[in-house]
Amino acid sequence: MNEKNHLADAHGQKQHLEHKRHTLAHLLAASVRELFPGSENAIGPAVDDGFYQDFEIKGQLSDADLPRIEEKMREMLKAWTEFDRKEVSKEEALQEFSWNKYKSELIEDFAKDGKTITFYSSGGFIDLCKGGHSQNPHADIAPDSFKLTRVAGAYWKGDEKNKMLTRVYGLAFDTKAELDAHMAQLEEAAARDHRKLGKELDLFVFSDVVGKGLPLWTEKGTTVRRELERFIVDEEIRRGYRHVMTPDIAKIDLFKKSGHYPYYKDSMYAPIAIDDEEFMLRPMTCPHHFELYLSKPRSYKELPMRIAELAKLYRYEQSGELSGLVRVRCFCLADAHIVCKDPEQAGEEVSNALDLIEYAAGIFGLEFGKDYWYRLSLGDRTDGEKYYKDDQAWDTAEEELRKILKKRNAHFVEASNEAAFYGPKIDIQMRDVRGKDNTAFTVQYDFVMPKRFDLGYIDSDGARKEALVVHRSSIGAIERIMAFLIEKFAGAFPLWLSPVQAKIIPIGDRQSDHAQSIASEFKKAGIRVETDLSTESLGKKVRAAKLEKIPYVIVIGDKEMESGLLNLEGRTAKIEGKTVSEAIAFLKEEIDSKRI
Amino acid sequence: MNEKNHLADAHGQKQHLEHKRHTLAHLLAASVRELFPGSENAIGPAVDDGFYQDFEIKGQLSDADLPRIEEKMREMLKAWTEFDRKEVSKEEALQEFSWNKYKSELIEDFAKDGKTITFYSSGGFIDLCKGGHSQNPHADIAPDSFKLTRVAGAYWKGDEKNKMLTRVYGLAFDTKAELDAHMAQLEEAAARDHRKLGKELDLFVFSDVVGKGLPLWTEKGTTVRRELERFIVDEEIRRGYRHVMTPDIAKIDLFKKSGHYPYYKDSMYAPIAIDDEEFMLRPMTCPHHFELYLSKPRSYKELPMRIAELAKLYRYEQSGELSGLVRVRCFCLADAHIVCKDPEQAGEEVSNALDLIEYAAGIFGLEFGKDYWYRLSLGDRTDGEKYYKDDQAWDTAEEELRKILKKRNAHFVEASNEAAFYGPKIDIQMRDVRGKDNTAFTVQYDFVMPKRFDLGYIDSDGARKEALVVHRSSIGAIERIMAFLIEKFAGAFPLWLSPVQAKIIPIGDRQSDHAQSIASEFKKAGIRVETDLSTESLGKKVRAAKLEKIPYVIVIGDKEMESGLLNLEGRTAKIEGKTVSEAIAFLKEEIDSKRI
Repeated sequence: MNEKNHLADAHGQKQHLEHKRHTLAHLLAASVRELFPGSENAIGPAVDDGFYQDFEIKGQLSDADLPRIEEKMREMLKAWTEFDRKEVSKEEALQEFSWNKYKSELIEDFAKDGKTITFYSSGGFIDLCKGGHSQNPHADIAPDSFKLTRVAGAYWKGDEKNKMLTRVYGLAFDTKAELDAHMAQLEEAAARDHRKLGKELDLFVFSDVVGKGLPLWTEKGTTVRRELERFIVDEEIRRGYRHVMTPDIAKIDLFKKSGHYPYYKDSMYAPIAIDDEEFMLRPMTCPHHFELYLSKPRSYKELPMRIAELAKLYRYEQSGELSGLVRVRCFCLADAHIVCKDPEQAGEEVSNALDLIEYAAGIFGLEFGKDYWYRLSLGDRTDGEKYYKDDQAWDTAEEELRKILKKRNAHFVEASNEAAFYGPKIDIQMRDVRGKDNTAFTVQYDFVMPKRFDLGYIDSDGARKEALVVHRSSIGAIERIMAFLIEKFAGAFPLWLSPVQAKIIPIGDRQSDHAQSIASEFKKAGIRVETDLSTESLGKKVRAAKLEKIPYVIVIGDKEMESGLLNLEGRTAKIEGKTVSEAIAFLKEEIDSKRI
Repeated sequence: MNEKNHLADAHGQKQHLEHKRHTLAHLLAASVRELFPGSENAIGPAVDDGFYQDFEIKGQLSDADLPRIEEKMREMLKAWTEFDRKEVSKEEALQEFSWNKYKSELIEDFAKDGKTITFYSSGGFIDLCKGGHSQNPHADIAPDSFKLTRVAGAYWKGDEKNKMLTRVYGLAFDTKAELDAHMAQLEEAAARDHRKLGKELDLFVFSDVVGKGLPLWTEKGTTVRRELERFIVDEEIRRGYRHVMTPDIAKIDLFKKSGHYPYYKDSMYAPIAIDDEEFMLRPMTCPHHFELYLSKPRSYKELPMRIAELAKLYRYEQSGELSGLVRVRCFCLADAHIVCKDPEQAGEEVSNALDLIEYAAGIFGLEFGKDYWYRLSLGDRTDGEKYYKDDQAWDTAEEELRKILKKRNAHFVEASNEAAFYGPKIDIQMRDVRGKDNTAFTVQYDFVMPKRFDLGYIDSDGARKEALVVHRSSIGAIERIMAFLIEKFAGAFPLWLSPVQAKIIPIGDRQSDHAQSIASEFKKAGIRVETDLSTESLGKKVRAAKLEKIPYVIVIGDKEMESGLLNLEGRTAKIEGKTVSEAIAFLKEEIDSKRI
């Protein structure tokens, strides 16, 4: 099967499922109308994993009612063996739905817009609808392939000035097996949700008075961040990056000079007036790095110049869109701009950047092909509005990136119309615990900024030449990768990232001093250790340490005091009979290896 | 001599010198009027280290004229044996100064304000003046105790809408020896100026389009900063601080809640509107840290809780006041807030903070008593506007701090009316290369914020109690300490801070590969090394490395290739005949010791 047929088939499959879900929304409306007579149904579409239906309920409907509504749906489904369509006049429609003010309002809206008004009915239940159902619901829908999940409030037409209606949500898939798998994934995702774990494990908090979308990192969360940040900074330096620090604000002129302003102004925050100048919280690092590059004349000998920074960036997010660490108002990007002398050098640098990304992904336990893959994001020569016009530069750059990916023997997909304004890019796509694909990191080829900023160098022949720039993020935004890692490890970080690496628990008062002196040895060796001196029972203390997802628990009883030997209870294995210095060496080896 | 007499005496001495300097300004005016007939003298006061006089010059006056003006001053001085005062009417004054529009304007101003108009004259030279001169200039002023230094432009009355006048500056002291010492210090300070060295050693740059007061740190400057930042973060963690990361912006409400807003709003930047809320660039970290503290109920067992952060802070500075790294618009403070349960614990924490400060100062090669000293900054019970009203809390806190300093046997001065709004503090005063004393770090005692934020804890008896807070900076603002260290070491940083720790120089092409393989061994060991493969002469390459203030230079010739041994040329000593691994061990030991 070639790619095109494969896509067509996937599309057919998707439409089929959407029809089923839409049909179930009708069935839900019919069932609620039976069980809650006098209720009015409003709208009810298919959504990503199921369907919903809004109602003005006569009486009260709560989560507790969902099982009997579901039962009613299954019962009614038996008689839904076809779906009939009928075009009606406005008058006819209004007469049929005189009992339902929502449908009546929609009928008036449709008539005003000159739309054809259609009724769809099955099993005797008529609804105002524009179509898209299963032809034979009874035959198409397995009775155990759907499930009502929750009741929520929703404003009529999504407008908070309107009445709040009752929304009933349902999940629906082709088979019970698929439904079960999805529910298991939801449950797992909820258990691993970084917002939930972030709170439980005391990694970060939010404060209303500080503001939404602005996480405050606690000591524990900061420890993980610091390990992560030092890891990537040191690794980049080892690979020849020049780490710099540049200010988080700049005059608006900088972003006008870079040409970013017209494209980015909607995602930038309002200017800050200082004396008679306007300053912006920066949404990107490129222009700052280019100013550093321009602070001296540059020679070809200095290229490639890899300018890197852990840079705080500020991009506008609507307050309703803010969510945990993934959608925030300020994030810290592991960013870099590599100034190159020609396409060949830029190509090598793209490949080096992919090497680094693969290395870091490996450290996080991610497998190429399984957890992440490459997408070659291309421009569109005919769209001069979205992409800088220079057909030859696009051709060269796209071919360079394609060549690199082929040479690496890396499987990749091509995506048209996904490039940056200034050139094509390689996106590193990753699947999260919710099964959603996102662009995690990106390596971009830029032949436009060098012109805007006049980024040049003196070549070996003495001539001044225009440079090329590769933009790349190695581990993306620290906030996002933190969210990703919390969810991937369900909070049980590898030893090197764990905020507390070992907990030493004396059985009672008698072993306290000994426990503390061991802890002090561990600390001197740079191991993050805590001692639990509370008066709780041993069992309770061990359970508490495990709930905190501490990698190693070391219980100190009389036997350990006498022998001077330690037993380390790890997450998966128990290591017994180590001297203090052996235990330290054992832990240090695991920390230094960054093993998962 | 008791303290009071000592101060009175110092005051008399200072006034005496000020009178001399003011007299010299008159003498300068008289001399310029002789040498540049038709010139008009405007104002001419005494300043910190000398005097100046403004003129509208008839003709041209440049630095080249200063020696002959100085000569003329010495010549005229002989006849200046007294200073006469005379009160005059407005009309009389205007008539005398009809040739001088600046004096005429001043006469009109004084008359309007109802001020007495006085003439002062010496050696036949009459000036409009309100007094303060040497009674006998010829006897009082040693002819070699002053020196004209430079010519600059200055607007009449400091208003850029007015005419630009010519300002002549001079230095003046009691004796030639003092003048010479001051000039030597100025010269030394100019050579060590962090702005000059920052540029020469490529540590940081400024960009007009990014904005004034916003340094961009290059790779080298960032390396020094990173070492410094990691040093203090690691040291603080070792001492039980909990390092956190909190956002650089917050809703204006946070600063209103903290009570900072009315006191700080003039030094805060304008708000940033986001949707219908206003956000501020934060000028201090306290409220963020208090929000973190408040994110959970706290027990006495958790106290003292030392919350620390390397925090970016934004405080308004007028653009004319911005200077190098010392006066910037954004700085990064090594800040901490220690929540304590009672005055005794707060006292211990103040002492612990001083221990840390002394430790860090020691690492930087600073001696207590010589390079820095303590100042106990007290409040004023009668000033309810400037200081929070709670006499008993002030008494307790001031006595606690005094007790700590006495117990440490640390010499300190007491300064009245220098406390913070919320309590007394210990300031760490330091002298810079210009001989100026500044508050470098500070440890503050706060009994006000805990009330504002309701910072409490559950005590061992189950009762909820109010906490106390110690605010402290350990090494102050990173920008400031960087400026200080650059000037202290004249750019020749200790090995652990040096951006490049060793330079390997092959004599010619033949030794290049060997040099590079040694460099690669050094790099693997974590030593920052560069190789100079240029075709310049050996002498030139060695000189270049020394100009860059690189601590160790390693030349590779045939002998070194054959023997495999290295010679390390340090700044003060030469270490010979080391194997590569011995050389690495030698350097690592010096790096780890942080020796100066």
